[in-house]
Amino acid sequence: MAEKTPLVGIIMGSNSDWPTLSQAAEMLDSFGVAYEAQVVSAHRTPEKMYDYAKTAKKRGLKCIIAGAGGAAHLPGMVSALTTLPVLGIPVESKALKGMDSLLSIVQMPGGIPTATFAIGAAGAKNAALYAVSILALNDDSLAQKLEEFREQQKAKVEAMELK
Amino acid sequence: MAEKTPLVGIIMGSNSDWPTLSQAAEMLDSFGVAYEAQVVSAHRTPEKMYDYAKTAKKRGLKCIIAGAGGAAHLPGMVSALTTLPVLGIPVESKALKGMDSLLSIVQMPGGIPTATFAIGAAGAKNAALYAVSILALNDDSLAQKLEEFREQQKAKVEAMELK
Amino acid sequence: MAEKTPLVGIIMGSNSDWPTLSQAAEMLDSFGVAYEAQVVSAHRTPEKMYDYAKTAKKRGLKCIIAGAGGAAHLPGMVSALTTLPVLGIPVESKALKGMDSLLSIVQMPGGIPTATFAIGAAGAKNAALYAVSILALNDDSLAQKLEEFREQQKAKVEAMELK
Amino acid sequence: MAEKTPLVGIIMGSNSDWPTLSQAAEMLDSFGVAYEAQVVSAHRTPEKMYDYAKTAKKRGLKCIIAGAGGAAHLPGMVSALTTLPVLGIPVESKALKGMDSLLSIVQMPGGIPTATFAIGAAGAKNAALYAVSILALNDDSLAQKLEEFREQQKAKVEAMELK
Amino acid sequence: MAEKTPLVGIIMGSNSDWPTLSQAAEMLDSFGVAYEAQVVSAHRTPEKMYDYAKTAKKRGLKCIIAGAGGAAHLPGMVSALTTLPVLGIPVESKALKGMDSLLSIVQMPGGIPTATFAIGAAGAKNAALYAVSILALNDDSLAQKLEEFREQQKAKVEAMELK
Amino acid sequence: MAEKTPLVGIIMGSNSDWPTLSQAAEMLDSFGVAYEAQVVSAHRTPEKMYDYAKTAKKRGLKCIIAGAGGAAHLPGMVSALTTLPVLGIPVESKALKGMDSLLSIVQMPGGIPTATFAIGAAGAKNAALYAVSILALNDDSLAQKLEEFREQQKAKVEAMELK
Amino acid sequence: MAEKTPLVGIIMGSNSDWPTLSQAAEMLDSFGVAYEAQVVSAHRTPEKMYDYAKTAKKRGLKCIIAGAGGAAHLPGMVSALTTLPVLGIPVESKALKGMDSLLSIVQMPGGIPTATFAIGAAGAKNAALYAVSILALNDDSLAQKLEEFREQQKAKVEAMELK
Amino acid sequence: MAEKTPLVGIIMGSNSDWPTLSQAAEMLDSFGVAYEAQVVSAHRTPEKMYDYAKTAKKRGLKCIIAGAGGAAHLPGMVSALTTLPVLGIPVESKALKGMDSLLSIVQMPGGIPTATFAIGAAGAKNAALYAVSILALNDDSLAQKLEEFREQQKAKVEAMELK
Repeated sequence: MAEKTPLVGIIMGSNSDWPTLSQAAEMLDSFGVAYEAQVVSAHRTPEKMYDYAKTAKKRGLKCIIAGAGGAAHLPGMVSALTTLPVLGIPVESKALKGMDSLLSIVQMPGGIPTATFAIGAAGAKNAALYAVSILALNDDSLAQKLEEFREQQKAKVEAMELK
Repeated sequence: MAEKTPLVGIIMGSNSDWPTLSQAAEMLDSFGVAYEAQVVSAHRTPEKMYDYAKTAKKRGLKCIIAGAGGAAHLPGMVSALTTLPVLGIPVESKALKGMDSLLSIVQMPGGIPTATFAIGAAGAKNAALYAVSILALNDDSLAQKLEEFREQQKAKVEAMELK
Repeated sequence: MAEKTPLVGIIMGSNSDWPTLSQAAEMLDSFGVAYEAQVVSAHRTPEKMYDYAKTAKKRGLKCIIAGAGGAAHLPGMVSALTTLPVLGIPVESKALKGMDSLLSIVQMPGGIPTATFAIGAAGAKNAALYAVSILALNDDSLAQKLEEFREQQKAKVEAMELK
Repeated sequence: MAEKTPLVGIIMGSNSDWPTLSQAAEMLDSFGVAYEAQVVSAHRTPEKMYDYAKTAKKRGLKCIIAGAGGAAHLPGMVSALTTLPVLGIPVESKALKGMDSLLSIVQMPGGIPTATFAIGAAGAKNAALYAVSILALNDDSLAQKLEEFREQQKAKVEAMELK
Repeated sequence: MAEKTPLVGIIMGSNSDWPTLSQAAEMLDSFGVAYEAQVVSAHRTPEKMYDYAKTAKKRGLKCIIAGAGGAAHLPGMVSALTTLPVLGIPVESKALKGMDSLLSIVQMPGGIPTATFAIGAAGAKNAALYAVSILALNDDSLAQKLEEFREQQKAKVEAMELK
Repeated sequence: MAEKTPLVGIIMGSNSDWPTLSQAAEMLDSFGVAYEAQVVSAHRTPEKMYDYAKTAKKRGLKCIIAGAGGAAHLPGMVSALTTLPVLGIPVESKALKGMDSLLSIVQMPGGIPTATFAIGAAGAKNAALYAVSILALNDDSLAQKLEEFREQQKAKVEAMELK
Repeated sequence: MAEKTPLVGIIMGSNSDWPTLSQAAEMLDSFGVAYEAQVVSAHRTPEKMYDYAKTAKKRGLKCIIAGAGGAAHLPGMVSALTTLPVLGIPVESKALKGMDSLLSIVQMPGGIPTATFAIGAAGAKNAALYAVSILALNDDSLAQKLEEFREQQKAKVEAMELK
Repeated sequence: MAEKTPLVGIIMGSNSDWPTLSQAAEMLDSFGVAYEAQVVSAHRTPEKMYDYAKTAKKRGLKCIIAGAGGAAHLPGMVSALTTLPVLGIPVESKALKGMDSLLSIVQMPGGIPTATFAIGAAGAKNAALYAVSILALNDDSLAQKLEEFREQQKAKVEAMELK
């Protein structure tokens, strides 16, 4: 992906979130969408988060996928610091299984929106697909790939056997 | 809004959801974004939902805001039937206060994404703002308005008095 | 079961649900009730779901057992597309242990009913038994078998030892 | 309804449940389905519950709608005492808003099925509609009425205005 | 314990509950309190449950410890059928971890009391200790043993080391 | 009640709990069981709580009904300080509706038992009835009254009309 | 309070939180502890929040009380930006009654601590009392006042009458 | 740590809580803050708890870290018995994963504050860090160490790689 300017930023509060977030990265790879991925912690690197969010638009990002667990403040804080669309992924937490992550991300007050997806891997895949659908609004080739993805997915389900 | 082609579709399972969804409509109005709003029930008018979702792209919609309560299937089913970005709003339900609506919308399986927002009015406002942020990716004037909205909102908070 | 027309349809959103749903199938087998089982995903194969539900009655099905996990829309959507009795099984999900599946299935709005059973294997067995009880209303032999099942179950419990 | 033998039994733990359960009764009335309605408490009149359940089939009932709140044992216990289909309605409780009622009804162990519907009025209406769908399997006129109900319901939704 | 008339009945819905309930039995053993233990299922052996509860007092039982999981009706139904003190133990269930069992047991309507203890093993031990405390009201020797149990327990805690 | 030595102690963390706890008092009144009622706060009057619990047995109490809301420590702490049976009532709290009160009371660790009843008024009534059932083990007249209470309650339910 | 340098900062996401947070202010008033109170929104005024937190220590604050509702990021983000003790108050939210606020505040990852108090008014009072207890570690007069507060509170409870 | 007077007390209801609480101890060790650690059970050693809390201040402790699981009364009861700042850690419980512990600790009534931290290890680490932040208010060297800890933590996050 080195030559292309990243269109999507993938950030997460810790590298322990990577097994979840990497599923978003793989999905973007499969669509040929350039992205960057790094650890940006709302709590432990707040200044880096500010810089990241504040410069995102200028650097050419079109949207930001942010994953976090527990008191998951990263997606909402990044949403507060940019007007780019932010896609939040609640990472499954140890004790409360991501219910804390989900509520911390989705229950944003009116005025600062964060799009929230399912807890864990399904959410990571879907955030990537959603990012693709946003980009596809102005990229017919990507729109076409998205339609094909849906068709392949449908075919895969239709081929499933029960045994 | 009559002369402009709607860019955003607002749909809901019942007109009893309108007090919530109308807050999305008002927000879009304030940005001058053309939209259409109607009742489309996943359960009671499934064919209409199919038609609505299947024709949305051709009719020029760029994204769809869908609100529903309880076993809230409308946002996810519309997501299944179009590759446009769908924004789901969990309407506050009577007994479980929207926790059922939230989980029914947000916990989508990998492959079919729905962006989910907060339960109730805050979610409705934010879905509209998020739709604006998507459209603003290719509309500099709208992007400018969004920055101004943020500034005004900031000013309003800074002017708040405690008494 | 090949010669008999299926009376019960068993559908599920993915073959990963089969370990749960197969328990419904086995129960129907034990009663000699003919059924068909296949993967039908509300989200990934919505057209197939429409066709399945819309043709179910004509094809001779008397009721449909539908299992799904997470934002579990299959049972409710099939209910919306047929007037046959639909029996929903919340499959245990990874993070939220089926609480999301349960609420997505049971909290249907007034007008479109879905009968909901327990999360997981117990629900699958019971949906099958419930289907039998519906069929038994007009099949004395099946009604007799159901009484015998209850008696055998009772005997099994009474024979249980604690050690 | 006096001349017809009741096909559906409606029971509830207290007359304080009647505002919820009466919605099932009204729905059955609208379909011309004969029913009986009475208070039968699992906890306060357990013998009456036994008699009710044990004689239900002989008395000509085809299914039983049972509503209860809190530690809602009535639907499950009646299910244990008859092989007729039982339809459980979780009545909204004061403190926990029916979450206790829902779990007490839906989480039945494998072997004794109870079909569960939504908390409160929606569940009551839907239990009645589901009873109709069961009866309609062997009553073409009722099946026809059910199709018409769906059509009228669809028309009502399609006529909804937003204002 | 063969020679003594049982003072405490221990019942459970299935022998799969015995790993939990056996902890109540062991505790009673340690106090030398005679008990009987058996499987009595509210759902699968309702008549046996009726007989058990109805004859409990006559047979000399002073209280009944009842454990069950999921839609846990046994403790409440036995409470409805006897005026003896009933002690309910919510057995940890697979999906919902005993939250369903707890609410099904504790949320009894006014008029029919069931004493409820913690989910799982702690609840089983405590139900036994509570039974002992009831019996000790009229048995000074047992009261003395209970005081000693508390002292030993205290000593055990005070001797705990951290390493 | 002045002449009789109280057999039951009713305590609560604040007089704001009295609307709930008074229902236990009224129930005991109706059985002619002598009781005392006072405010004893685990958090605000811990020494008084110690004294109360430590002297309860000597003062002739047979059991203690303790109600509290939120982080409801009173029932469990009194249980820790006496070997008398303690009956805990979770008072409905403002935000979490008594779910916090319930878990704080019922989830006691193995070794110190507290019998827990339903959230709110139903729990208060039932704690009183349970206290009566404990006392009735050695009071035939009270046992008789309890049977009569059950019969009257049954009659009241059987006389309920639906309208 | 004008002459004294504030020792405690009270901040909240919106002036709609003031009815809750003002209870912290009143408590500090009653102890004669100087404080400042203002609206600082993590989401709508993120830069102001940065400045506030970054300058808090230099300006002489000893601790910061921060209240917020829903996806309540303010307490945790301020904790990330200062090493002063931060005390978080979950404001009761409309739909989820503060459960979302609570989890968003309390479930902070290891490394950045936020002290969390009860949902709503009780939490606001207690955060203020806790701030006093921190300050009292180095202020004997304040420590004395705190002891007196406890005594008066005890007296008030002991004087409570039940009627 | 033998020569220094402990400034922080670490207590827990059982040595089974030590794997969680030891993380608080290790954190204090890393800051060179003297502490003592022992088992003090609210339920099984209530007198020891009273003594511990009542003498804490005199013995030179500046704050107390208390961890407990289930019906976790230790932090709140110690808060009731001392005016020192108490820091509560909800230990993850078996069935309810610490949600019971959390609510039992955090939902304290107005008047007796307990600072609550996250469920499990994260909470233990953060309680220790919070204790350090309290002590650092009057210990410049400790304040300096805390700033360094934050910097190191930041550096560690910034050095994280995704692979």
